[in-house]
Amino acid sequence: MSPAPRTEITLELATEFARTLRIDSLRATAAANAGHPTSAASAAELMAVLGARHFRFDAREPSHPDNDRFILSKGHASALQYAWLKAFGAIDDAELLTYGQVGSRLEGHPRPLLPWVDVATGSLGQGIACGVGIALSLKQLEHTSSRVFVLCGDSEMAEGSVWEAFEHADHYDLDNFVVMVDVNSLGQRGTTMVGHDTAVLARRAEAFGWTAFEVDGHDVAQIDDAFGRAGVSGRPTVVLAKTIKGKGLVDVEGRQGWHGRPHPEPLAALAALGEPTARLFPSTELGPVPSPAPTGQAVDLPAYEVGDLVATRLAYGQALVAIGDARQQVVVLDAETNNSTYAELFAAAHPERYFEMFIAEQQMVGTAVGLAARGWTVYTSTFASFTTRAFDFVRMAAIGGMALRMCGSHAGLSVGESGASGMGLEDIACFRAIPGSHVFQPADATAAAGLTLLAADLAGFTYLRTTRAPVPVLYPRGTPFLDGGSHLLRSSAADRVTVVASGSSVHAALAAAARLSTDGLAVRVIDAYSVKPVDVSALLSAAEQTDLIVTVEDHYPEGGLGSVVAEVLAEAGSSTRLVRLAVRSVPGCGPTAALAAIAGIDADGIVRAIVDALAT
Amino acid sequence: MSPAPRTEITLELATEFARTLRIDSLRATAAANAGHPTSAASAAELMAVLGARHFRFDAREPSHPDNDRFILSKGHASALQYAWLKAFGAIDDAELLTYGQVGSRLEGHPRPLLPWVDVATGSLGQGIACGVGIALSLKQLEHTSSRVFVLCGDSEMAEGSVWEAFEHADHYDLDNFVVMVDVNSLGQRGTTMVGHDTAVLARRAEAFGWTAFEVDGHDVAQIDDAFGRAGVSGRPTVVLAKTIKGKGLVDVEGRQGWHGRPHPEPLAALAALGEPTARLFPSTELGPVPSPAPTGQAVDLPAYEVGDLVATRLAYGQALVAIGDARQQVVVLDAETNNSTYAELFAAAHPERYFEMFIAEQQMVGTAVGLAARGWTVYTSTFASFTTRAFDFVRMAAIGGMALRMCGSHAGLSVGESGASGMGLEDIACFRAIPGSHVFQPADATAAAGLTLLAADLAGFTYLRTTRAPVPVLYPRGTPFLDGGSHLLRSSAADRVTVVASGSSVHAALAAAARLSTDGLAVRVIDAYSVKPVDVSALLSAAEQTDLIVTVEDHYPEGGLGSVVAEVLAEAGSSTRLVRLAVRSVPGCGPTAALAAIAGIDADGIVRAIVDALAT
Repeated sequence: MSPAPRTEITLELATEFARTLRIDSLRATAAANAGHPTSAASAAELMAVLGARHFRFDAREPSHPDNDRFILSKGHASALQYAWLKAFGAIDDAELLTYGQVGSRLEGHPRPLLPWVDVATGSLGQGIACGVGIALSLKQLEHTSSRVFVLCGDSEMAEGSVWEAFEHADHYDLDNFVVMVDVNSLGQRGTTMVGHDTAVLARRAEAFGWTAFEVDGHDVAQIDDAFGRAGVSGRPTVVLAKTIKGKGLVDVEGRQGWHGRPHPEPLAALAALGEPTARLFPSTELGPVPSPAPTGQAVDLPAYEVGDLVATRLAYGQALVAIGDARQQVVVLDAETNNSTYAELFAAAHPERYFEMFIAEQQMVGTAVGLAARGWTVYTSTFASFTTRAFDFVRMAAIGGMALRMCGSHAGLSVGESGASGMGLEDIACFRAIPGSHVFQPADATAAAGLTLLAADLAGFTYLRTTRAPVPVLYPRGTPFLDGGSHLLRSSAADRVTVVASGSSVHAALAAAARLSTDGLAVRVIDAYSVKPVDVSALLSAAEQTDLIVTVEDHYPEGGLGSVVAEVLAEAGSSTRLVRLAVRSVPGCGPTAALAAIAGIDADGIVRAIVDALAT
Repeated sequence: MSPAPRTEITLELATEFARTLRIDSLRATAAANAGHPTSAASAAELMAVLGARHFRFDAREPSHPDNDRFILSKGHASALQYAWLKAFGAIDDAELLTYGQVGSRLEGHPRPLLPWVDVATGSLGQGIACGVGIALSLKQLEHTSSRVFVLCGDSEMAEGSVWEAFEHADHYDLDNFVVMVDVNSLGQRGTTMVGHDTAVLARRAEAFGWTAFEVDGHDVAQIDDAFGRAGVSGRPTVVLAKTIKGKGLVDVEGRQGWHGRPHPEPLAALAALGEPTARLFPSTELGPVPSPAPTGQAVDLPAYEVGDLVATRLAYGQALVAIGDARQQVVVLDAETNNSTYAELFAAAHPERYFEMFIAEQQMVGTAVGLAARGWTVYTSTFASFTTRAFDFVRMAAIGGMALRMCGSHAGLSVGESGASGMGLEDIACFRAIPGSHVFQPADATAAAGLTLLAADLAGFTYLRTTRAPVPVLYPRGTPFLDGGSHLLRSSAADRVTVVASGSSVHAALAAAARLSTDGLAVRVIDAYSVKPVDVSALLSAAEQTDLIVTVEDHYPEGGLGSVVAEVLAEAGSSTRLVRLAVRSVPGCGPTAALAAIAGIDADGIVRAIVDALAT
């Protein structure tokens, strides 16, 4: 697996490069008067040897599939990555000195504003997870010999997500994956959990199926030797480099208390470092970038008969198969729940594009981010209750601008007897707060299939919420489902009340409206399947044309559909009163219908709320 | 560490107990026609040997500090735990058969509705984390010889949080901690990541500093031997039990496809199992429960001079010290950021009640839950941006009804040059959706200290959001801060506009109001420091008395203060228009003031928004 090192660059020159990386990291952070120069300095030899002798890279063609990939998991050492990119000629010195300024591509933590940065980092323990996704793509989907290198800090080895990445890299035999750990022993606040004990980290890595090399992280020959042997064993490789924080920087080298602070005397430190080398890292001629794969044919979504009973989660799985049939770039992941989410249908139809993530939701999203960075259209799924386990990974994906889709199935009270731990009742609130996100909740199978397809081409993060039980199909084939759309399911000129619902609550709303109509009360029903963005004009029409709006949701009252409608009404200065029905305390367990009745979000509850509201 | 087994119960009788646990698990799930009988059956011998010969327990005194503690991390096997509690005489057969019914204490996944259940489980990989907290309390705070036993499933070993628990148990030398892993090799959907390979799990556990025993999980002698040696090494112990899913249950034993499904022919399966034993597990006489420790003296909070510049995060740390001085039951945790959150002040003042959690936010909350279950008043802290990494743990804590406090510091744009990855801008939305939660955002040091103290005595989860930069003290010593309170900072009979803000945005609001007043426009300013619950009457008064309400928040627009105000206005049918100022896209990096100006949440932005709104 491991190509021979480029011996035209001597180890002496690699040492010069290390000095140059320190100098440029220091200059960038000094210019910004911010940043983490000590965290950059400890890893200078690792990055110098990598760039000089091992990393296959054509900086002019950042999207070339034969480029090796690099991820800075310890994103706070961003100045080091920028100095390294400068040493490849990717950025120039003027841009280097814009570090941390408003509008600069060189942010405090790397983001894919730069074409050589694949994923956003800065929340620790995530770069390695995304690296697994990229390595998986390169090896199993793209079949290239490119490799992925990730630089981790030692503090972040305490994050459990790191060990999820280790186990998945082992499980998927990622011998193209090399992780460097900069073991400088000093965290932000003090000594890390294991200090300089690289042996304990080596034992852990080996127990997870990896090959581990312990090296002196300032000895270029030892580092070079480790990189030269990476992957030879057929396993993923970790290089555990014992280093000194702030190495080479006078006044701060090896001292506690200098995490995340610019150097106090940068000019003196620069003077002590001497002159940088004018040489660049060697670039690899990779030839022209291959044309992108065709985007696929028209998707033939599954069709459902109005009135048939079909669970929205089943329609999700069936739609995935159809989308995957038409589009070769669709990849699906699931976290050990694919027989519930129905991702298993895709796994059976397209096994080469399905990857089981086991019960590791954070790694599922990390893998998805890595795959998305390689251009795949990725869908992920698990129970709605467990989607938020990966919240911080979704947050980082959004910061990185990745397009990503997540389906949370068995949402809300639909798990019944399982009890509250299995009920996703806060998922909409969380994912609605993700910048640029889309949140969809289909009320029937046609909507679920349509929204699953819609998500394929949306930018940003899309959350699709499905439910357990079969529900009647409401919409005929071909009904459009749009980002920001809604459907008016019941309306008349006589409407006095509007019920706004989505998902399974739509059926309760329809039942309530039918019952009230027999008492002579006309009730409008809006299926707000697009919770974010919401259909503002449909809501404002309802506010103008009816006296009362009732929202119904199988979700806690904060941050869900009721909040969305409140925001629209209040911003418009509407005086139409809003009643929000939602699950207002931790549910017990029992049959779903009984729990919905207790929460007051079933048809009876809606009728009662409307009657009460009109009486006051 | 390990007491001798109770040899008055023979291993033959332990086998009878195992059969009885299978019978009762099956009866409970059959009565409910729901549940996970196959996941209960695989661990019957583990639980039988534990209960019969090793577990020190007085079921009549569930709160006795000398009781050993048990946590079912694989919460879906709840029927096994209930059968086990019945075998101790803790619950009776009639209650056993209420399993999964509305109103029963025996829910699908265990919750502390039962006094013998310490923490809620059901989201996998969390019971072991909470167990670390309990074991830490027993050993390091209570100085008892009681032990903690946790039963994990093998599927959940894929969760990174499990390895956070392993590393912390090692770091804190928890030789009173015994984890059993029911390695039945079958997950919900298929074979687990490592199948029946207990050796690989043993290697991992040993690499994390644990003693591992591999046993046949249906051989009571092997299990008994492992329990007998637990803790002898001075290390935490894991018993890796190779088992068969559905063991002893005809038709389903060892078969895939029977996860989470009641037995198809329970009567036949019961007939094949034979008669249960009438014996009970031996109870341990522990004597009377000791009186609780005194709750402490009055707290002497730090005092701040109005106009002085003090960061709210500093006041948090100073308040923690004061509260800890007065109350011996206060314990503080932090995730490697205590020099930023100022939890370091407490660590210095009360080192015996401070525990460093390193960069493992999930374990931080898991530890806190375990400590709270032992009666401690626990505060946790990290950067606001990373609080949501532990969201699912907070969700489970709320489902378990635990009182817990979390401080997220450096919230919003206050990290400036670090960039978006370090900015908590969705934290309020997430934590507001936690049932029964309190969300506070102090605008000054007096408020921060007061709210930190207030949180000590609140039920449920409290989130306190602090910021990085020093801000002027607004409130004199003794100003009250209440759950659901607010302060009117500026008002007059001539007010046309109300600005509602909290945290650092209050200062921007005051500056904007001052500027507009010089133009003759009277602007009311409300400090809504209690975001949840919010001060509804203050908002409704503003809606009645002014023409426009503007909310300002250093947060994304979904689910934060703006949403709260919208909910209040819309539910009241108020026609007062709302303008919500918030951070509307992923910020870049740069000085905080520049980023606030770009987002339009600084004083200029507020002035502009008010002028624009009044002009239309």
